[in-house]
Amino acid sequence: MPLGEFELIERYLSRLGAQRDDVLLGVGDDAALLRPPAGLELALAADTVVEGVHFPAGLDAADLGHRVLAVNLSDMAAMGAEPAWALLTLTLPRAEPEWLRGFANGLHELARQHGTALVGGDTTSGPLAATVAIAGFVPPGQALRRAGARAGDELWVSGTPGDASAGLAIITGTLEAPDSVAGPLAQRFLRPAPRVSLGLVLRGVASACIDVSDGLLGDLGKLCRASGVAAEVDSTCLPRSEALRAATDPATARRFALGGGDDYELLFTLPPGTDTAQLTRGAGVRLTRIGTIVSGDGLRVDGLPPEREPGHGFDHFG
Amino acid sequence: MPLGEFELIERYLSRLGAQRDDVLLGVGDDAALLRPPAGLELALAADTVVEGVHFPAGLDAADLGHRVLAVNLSDMAAMGAEPAWALLTLTLPRAEPEWLRGFANGLHELARQHGTALVGGDTTSGPLAATVAIAGFVPPGQALRRAGARAGDELWVSGTPGDASAGLAIITGTLEAPDSVAGPLAQRFLRPAPRVSLGLVLRGVASACIDVSDGLLGDLGKLCRASGVAAEVDSTCLPRSEALRAATDPATARRFALGGGDDYELLFTLPPGTDTAQLTRGAGVRLTRIGTIVSGDGLRVDGLPPEREPGHGFDHFG
Repeated sequence: MPLGEFELIERYLSRLGAQRDDVLLGVGDDAALLRPPAGLELALAADTVVEGVHFPAGLDAADLGHRVLAVNLSDMAAMGAEPAWALLTLTLPRAEPEWLRGFANGLHELARQHGTALVGGDTTSGPLAATVAIAGFVPPGQALRRAGARAGDELWVSGTPGDASAGLAIITGTLEAPDSVAGPLAQRFLRPAPRVSLGLVLRGVASACIDVSDGLLGDLGKLCRASGVAAEVDSTCLPRSEALRAATDPATARRFALGGGDDYELLFTLPPGTDTAQLTRGAGVRLTRIGTIVSGDGLRVDGLPPEREPGHGFDHFG
Repeated sequence: MPLGEFELIERYLSRLGAQRDDVLLGVGDDAALLRPPAGLELALAADTVVEGVHFPAGLDAADLGHRVLAVNLSDMAAMGAEPAWALLTLTLPRAEPEWLRGFANGLHELARQHGTALVGGDTTSGPLAATVAIAGFVPPGQALRRAGARAGDELWVSGTPGDASAGLAIITGTLEAPDSVAGPLAQRFLRPAPRVSLGLVLRGVASACIDVSDGLLGDLGKLCRASGVAAEVDSTCLPRSEALRAATDPATARRFALGGGDDYELLFTLPPGTDTAQLTRGAGVRLTRIGTIVSGDGLRVDGLPPEREPGHGFDHFG
């Protein structure tokens, strides 16, 4: 008998991620059985990555395994939720043990780092795509929503947005850069680091939060619409990595930082008077103020509307 | 601005299914926020349907919306769980408002029937596929697992397996049947009815349960392997619908019933002495005993091993 679906699932995907006592029944039945902690709210999200849309054809299997979990962990981070359980549905053109082993390793390593157990899912044939559904927990009323920003709040971002999209441009050959910076930038696309710890630190502190998946301006626009506010961004404050500065001219770096996606940094608002010195010490990642929330609607970058900016919000159907 | 991803999601997919008080935050943020009921176990599952693999190209959008939720509700049924919340990730080659409206309607109607709220997900471009992740609840220790069957248990099935695969054969033109039966059989494929109520009735009664998605013998094999037992099936007991009998000769009907998939009936085992008369009265669907669990491993149909049967377990990579 050829190596079939069920054997593949059992062999590579049945025991990935952290081992958790609250998993009563994991992969292998019609559903997983889990014990939610008493008194907490459940945060539930799902994201898909599709070959040729979210990642280029030929992506290393381990990078893809990392990626599909990372984009979902980033959703937990953006809510201030502590991730617990994940389901994987994987669509593959062919069942190749070596590919599956790599994919499983990439997913397992990141899941383990974040205390997340893979508890179920589905494997099927078809065009290469992967979906993770993720569940996490947050104390009642403490979740970070998009809708809480108020005029006067400070606008902050983690990390150095733009690196991932520059890295993707290097991978796909549309941007040339010296090897010494091309590698680090490519890694920022290939191995996004979801800001789960930062999300936990921001609970009870940030007034609103979103993760930067589709581009800083596009995601800022969503946060502002949800909150019924506007935002002013000072592009001279945008944090840029040394690698990005070495790889491109300032105008291109600005374009990647404002319009590029795939960074999975957190974009958040802080009420005036927040002790940002303490926050930045506890964050574990660089935090930078890049603007201010104001009343009204729409965005302004250096005083101009973002229609003047390229790539203001990646839209799969735009 | 063209009708983009975010507008499409908001317009068609943001308020589907039942309205539930335990949904604190639904579609539109980085994750949904939900209040799990105290003291219950959480059942969590996800299934994908891919065009050309799980359904033929050109399937009506409403049928697809129904289908992707139905296969997941069936997982809840097979666990004896009461469904509550669903996430949808939808991959579409093009964003067509009319198609999305039909899809949303098909999903909404079935979700509403089963008290399930659509609370989030993701929409992206790519080859047509849909994934639902579903969450439901079951009292501690009462979930129906695959692993509980014991030698001497009776083997039962709901409904009339084989109808859906015969219906698919009619839709794809590989089976011809008179119009009077072709329509009803096609409907059995197009609109599977997940046996959620039956699953609830079987809690505390059935020793093991699985839903018939990949074919009766294939799924029975999984149940037996999980339980460490064997099964004997009496094919003369297989319930066959009038439509299936009218559409095919007895040998073909038998083949559909044993090997066909997509029925989403429940296959379950009952300890000897179970009050099956009461059970069948409360089930709301025809229940039929089709065999017996025995010690050992493997399956026998009318005394012969299932290798003699065609289609003993649909395998996407077989």
